[in-house]
Amino acid sequence: MVMAKTTGRLTIPSDENFLHETEQLIEKWGADAIRDSDGTKLDTALKQLSIKLYSTYFVARGYNDFAEKHPETVQELYLMSDRVTATSDQLTIDFMAHYFDQQIQPNYHDDPAEYWEVIDRTTGEVVPSQQWRVDTKNHTVTMTHVVPYHEYTVSFLANMIWDPTEMYNHLTNNWGDRAHQIPFDVRFPDAEQFMQKTLKDWLAANPEIDVVRFTTFFYHFTLVFDDQAREKFVDWLGFGGTVSVPALKAFEKVKGYKLRPEDFVDQGFYNSSYRVPSKHYRDYIDFVSAFVADQAKILVDMVHDAGKEAMMFLGDNWIGTEPYGPNFGKIGLDAVVGSVGNATTLRLISDIPHVKYTEGRFLPYFFPDVFHEGGDPVAEAKQNWLTARRAIMRKPVDRIGYGGYLKLAAQFPDFVDYVTHVADEFRDIYSRIHDTHPYAGLTVGVLNAWGQQRAWQPFIVAHGKWYKQAYSYEGVMESLAGQAVNVQFLNFDDIKTHGVPENIDVLVNVGAAGTAFSGGDYWKDPDVLAAIRAWVAAGHGFVGIGSPSAIPGTYEGRTFQLADVLGVDQEAGFSLSTDKYPARDVSTHFITENREDPLDYGESTHDVYPFPDTTVIDQGHHETYLTTHDYGDGRGVYLAGLPYSPQNSNLLLRAMFFAASKEDQFNQWYATNPDTEVAAYPSAGYYAVLNNTDQPQKTTVYTTAGHQTDVNLAPGEIRWETI
Amino acid sequence: MVMAKTTGRLTIPSDENFLHETEQLIEKWGADAIRDSDGTKLDTALKQLSIKLYSTYFVARGYNDFAEKHPETVQELYLMSDRVTATSDQLTIDFMAHYFDQQIQPNYHDDPAEYWEVIDRTTGEVVPSQQWRVDTKNHTVTMTHVVPYHEYTVSFLANMIWDPTEMYNHLTNNWGDRAHQIPFDVRFPDAEQFMQKTLKDWLAANPEIDVVRFTTFFYHFTLVFDDQAREKFVDWLGFGGTVSVPALKAFEKVKGYKLRPEDFVDQGFYNSSYRVPSKHYRDYIDFVSAFVADQAKILVDMVHDAGKEAMMFLGDNWIGTEPYGPNFGKIGLDAVVGSVGNATTLRLISDIPHVKYTEGRFLPYFFPDVFHEGGDPVAEAKQNWLTARRAIMRKPVDRIGYGGYLKLAAQFPDFVDYVTHVADEFRDIYSRIHDTHPYAGLTVGVLNAWGQQRAWQPFIVAHGKWYKQAYSYEGVMESLAGQAVNVQFLNFDDIKTHGVPENIDVLVNVGAAGTAFSGGDYWKDPDVLAAIRAWVAAGHGFVGIGSPSAIPGTYEGRTFQLADVLGVDQEAGFSLSTDKYPARDVSTHFITENREDPLDYGESTHDVYPFPDTTVIDQGHHETYLTTHDYGDGRGVYLAGLPYSPQNSNLLLRAMFFAASKEDQFNQWYATNPDTEVAAYPSAGYYAVLNNTDQPQKTTVYTTAGHQTDVNLAPGEIRWETI
Repeated sequence: MVMAKTTGRLTIPSDENFLHETEQLIEKWGADAIRDSDGTKLDTALKQLSIKLYSTYFVARGYNDFAEKHPETVQELYLMSDRVTATSDQLTIDFMAHYFDQQIQPNYHDDPAEYWEVIDRTTGEVVPSQQWRVDTKNHTVTMTHVVPYHEYTVSFLANMIWDPTEMYNHLTNNWGDRAHQIPFDVRFPDAEQFMQKTLKDWLAANPEIDVVRFTTFFYHFTLVFDDQAREKFVDWLGFGGTVSVPALKAFEKVKGYKLRPEDFVDQGFYNSSYRVPSKHYRDYIDFVSAFVADQAKILVDMVHDAGKEAMMFLGDNWIGTEPYGPNFGKIGLDAVVGSVGNATTLRLISDIPHVKYTEGRFLPYFFPDVFHEGGDPVAEAKQNWLTARRAIMRKPVDRIGYGGYLKLAAQFPDFVDYVTHVADEFRDIYSRIHDTHPYAGLTVGVLNAWGQQRAWQPFIVAHGKWYKQAYSYEGVMESLAGQAVNVQFLNFDDIKTHGVPENIDVLVNVGAAGTAFSGGDYWKDPDVLAAIRAWVAAGHGFVGIGSPSAIPGTYEGRTFQLADVLGVDQEAGFSLSTDKYPARDVSTHFITENREDPLDYGESTHDVYPFPDTTVIDQGHHETYLTTHDYGDGRGVYLAGLPYSPQNSNLLLRAMFFAASKEDQFNQWYATNPDTEVAAYPSAGYYAVLNNTDQPQKTTVYTTAGHQTDVNLAPGEIRWETI
Repeated sequence: MVMAKTTGRLTIPSDENFLHETEQLIEKWGADAIRDSDGTKLDTALKQLSIKLYSTYFVARGYNDFAEKHPETVQELYLMSDRVTATSDQLTIDFMAHYFDQQIQPNYHDDPAEYWEVIDRTTGEVVPSQQWRVDTKNHTVTMTHVVPYHEYTVSFLANMIWDPTEMYNHLTNNWGDRAHQIPFDVRFPDAEQFMQKTLKDWLAANPEIDVVRFTTFFYHFTLVFDDQAREKFVDWLGFGGTVSVPALKAFEKVKGYKLRPEDFVDQGFYNSSYRVPSKHYRDYIDFVSAFVADQAKILVDMVHDAGKEAMMFLGDNWIGTEPYGPNFGKIGLDAVVGSVGNATTLRLISDIPHVKYTEGRFLPYFFPDVFHEGGDPVAEAKQNWLTARRAIMRKPVDRIGYGGYLKLAAQFPDFVDYVTHVADEFRDIYSRIHDTHPYAGLTVGVLNAWGQQRAWQPFIVAHGKWYKQAYSYEGVMESLAGQAVNVQFLNFDDIKTHGVPENIDVLVNVGAAGTAFSGGDYWKDPDVLAAIRAWVAAGHGFVGIGSPSAIPGTYEGRTFQLADVLGVDQEAGFSLSTDKYPARDVSTHFITENREDPLDYGESTHDVYPFPDTTVIDQGHHETYLTTHDYGDGRGVYLAGLPYSPQNSNLLLRAMFFAASKEDQFNQWYATNPDTEVAAYPSAGYYAVLNNTDQPQKTTVYTTAGHQTDVNLAPGEIRWETI
């Protein structure tokens, strides 16, 4: 089947003085939109083409005249000092130590006695403000009547005087004495009015722009640098930078109680999304998101009134717009664009509700780090496309795009050709499937403390960065993002209130003990436990990966509170006296039927042991890695970890089918070679066989009713067949 | 230096019809005592020799006539049923499931409604006794008004109708229909009187016996078999088998409050010594120990009145005699004998206070498992002797001995010769050092929840068995047991009340998070933390191994509560957002100067990371294994684990000297080759260089003032030199 040449659904960057070449690439790639990028300006002549024009738009930074005139509007955050040990009954803490004074300035304007907090971290007790005073010259807090050899911290309110993204770019690119962009806070009426006025003026001055690409709205994710101008703290989901005295006061009015500095500082963990969110933090997220939605809606309405579309970049100043949260829909955005690193991030974008379209920005970014003599941008593009394509087959973004310097990319003809291929293939896929539903053999519920609110966002710390403590769990997200299953994200309150939704076949609980992703103290909730047990016993499946249902240090005799379902528990050191005999050890099993390489559990989980009636599929080193266990009419499956690999993805799929007791339905729209996958669209009348690798692959494809056919696929091929 | 032929300090077994050969071996080995063993009887003629005769004596078993006539005196224990999930509002639990009915019988005599407990393990709540009833025919408990899909357990009082050691021997040796020995409880006056009367008669009937070797007194350590007649639960230190209704009533009278079944069952952990002991369990140990001491004293006094010595075997029915506890001295024993498996167990015996002498029973036991065609008893004996000899050099037992069938051993002339060598070498060592003090470069305090009460007993589950969760910590005990350091065991209450004792140079805290050996919730005690911090800052050392000062799941922002001292913490998953930059990484360090093989941390400890001012000696795989950190004038040293090896023993010694800031005193009475050690006795005027291996070794010996000399040692050699 030869694809007809198609156009559209593609956004590309351009440059100044690059008109002719841009026109050629628009033609070749079938692009229908042009964007500017950080550091590029569009050629004015481009604006005459019959093509959509995007313009990045910054709301809360880039207007230092305003910010400097209204210093009270500068954005703020709560920070914790170093932990400092008292060696006598007096202690002075240099609370700015290890912070970057070009980014952070203490807020002395609002009374520290009211808004700061000194805590004895050895006891957790607050030191009364009468016992300490602030030296605003030296940025120190001196306290009296402290206990020698207790550790103390100062939680202080600080102004953030440099926008984190601009700071990062500035420092990375050595922009020297270029002015630092000061972020200001829409919470202050002056700032709010300024933002609206500025946008109004800008809309009037830029009639040719079709799409205002907000980068983004009001609050940057938490990103704090240290005294060596290096990253000190980063949380892509962090609400740290949204705080201010007016916000605290408004919160109290709305929610009926006061927040403490500790609600933000959180023992120095700053409400990382790995923390089971406290009620206060949940309330605060809701409070900020509602406010951000209201404020963003005003700007979006202005954009619409000007006859333009409003698009939001999913990143940078996106805090408060959580696209799966309850307030997002109110903003009224037309579109969201985000960066695609893999299948998970593709789904994070493509599943976003309440917008007319989504756009994925693909890699590589047209920057000299890849586009240089000897660089291989095609390899990176292939890797990116083949990785994300799995997810597109489940739920496509509506558009794709690239960013950076077009001039650079144009110098690599192979790359130009590959983008042509990607664009054509994307449009072909999209035209076939965007209005249909792919076949799903299972509906999977991913259970954690965040649920749908942070769909596809588990385990993210800094967007796209690898973490030793994350990769063995992230593989679950990456597998699910491209598999022939429906995925829902559920939180414990959902389960507690409504039970497990009827359509769910398998619950998946994956993460480290005590974290929001495993669930922490939610697993002490008897209603949650009873609901899941009853549901599994009724014939459903529970797949636990890592430390599912775990309470660190045990609770009522167990580490895994669903040990009875899983058939395994983790030895915490207290039950060594209880003999553990080998359980049923099987040499072959449905779950590992497709295994070719050694099984890989990443960091694995230590000291897990099976119960006598558990089936052990893989074990070693006095530890248990992969088991199944009957529970009533249902099943529990345990896996010690699941870093992403095609084999592990296949393993997870099999584990879920087995847990759901649907092994007999497994060989349907399924390709046996884990490097290949099938996406079927029965209502549309065709299916596709994908080669997810850059190598030729041979695979056996099961369609329906046991029919199978051998297929040879070219590198990266997608083979469409009619049903 | 040729050793003169010496005699004495050696106990050997004998057999019937083996008189002449026994006499020859007595002569050859210089034995001065003969013992019987399980399953052997002494030749009556032997009793005429001018040699001490030991006789094993069983107090609480072996008299089934009595036990069967007084079934109310049969020993008891609290057991927990399986955890069983309710699937409706009624539930029946077969509480005897997975217990061995030849060992365990439910006690229906004492009212279950009063003495049993049904617990909802999903909530931790007790189910009122009105809601359940016992079926004594079927051994079930049926409960009503339970919550579907909650887990329930029954804690029941049971009679132990078979002595665990006799049961083990019986089953292992297929003794068929030989009667099962029923253990009875001294707590019942009939049993108490019977025991005393029996001993009185026995003493009168056995005038030729010199030493009554109690095996042991009243209560066996907890050892429960399962329905397949296999070990189900074993705790060498467990007080499980000491309970009875009279004991519970007496406890209430003495301590002023009532114990619950859950105080014994402990969520199924049964107060394993890995559990931080509860106040109730501590009180119970004290209560039982005081009672056992009183009762044992009566028997010991009778032995003394008969002109004999009273010796106690450290094992089997030893519960309540904890030799480092506060009640042991009251018993008035002459001696303790115990089994020597390594240096740690040697010290466990040799350090016992309040007795005239201690005796170590060495390996191999003269049993067919080693003494058979092709067996190599010499290799086992060498391993045992060279391993334990290190500890003897620090604090000798007063006697050594062997057990089993002498006839078997006599068939191995090489073995007979090696025992000759061991006996002579032991006597030589003993004569030189027993009344002097070895040089110690440091005084080390081992800090855990048990302290001195369980000196040398950390990490024991079943005596002599290997556990994955123990060996990486046990190496610390084994190293210390033979090193040129003084060792004290301290608990947290000692520290809290009195601070760290003045003579201590280094505190060592070693174990897994949450266990009694790391310390669990004691590390939330601000007084403990402040006392240790102040003491380290004053110039002392803290060595943490595994998860020192750890609270599972973090507390006030830290996993390791002494992270500030150690300079490392363990990432629990909550602070991934905080960047961790490489700390000072040194390629050479005093602590690892002697390293030849790759460092080995055993199971290691995961996700530990250093602070910026920490010196990292060894790291890898995004984890930190060995670090040092300055704290005030003192130092913290962290090690991820320390299984025993000569290199690790050397490493620990260096780590402790470094922590104590005494590196300059390290090269004193020290041999550079880790397979060799120096034991110096300055007041006696000599020192010994030991080759701990069965290979020739070359080593450099530092004496004092920097003097050094190269020494070549034969396999296993101990070279004495005068100072």
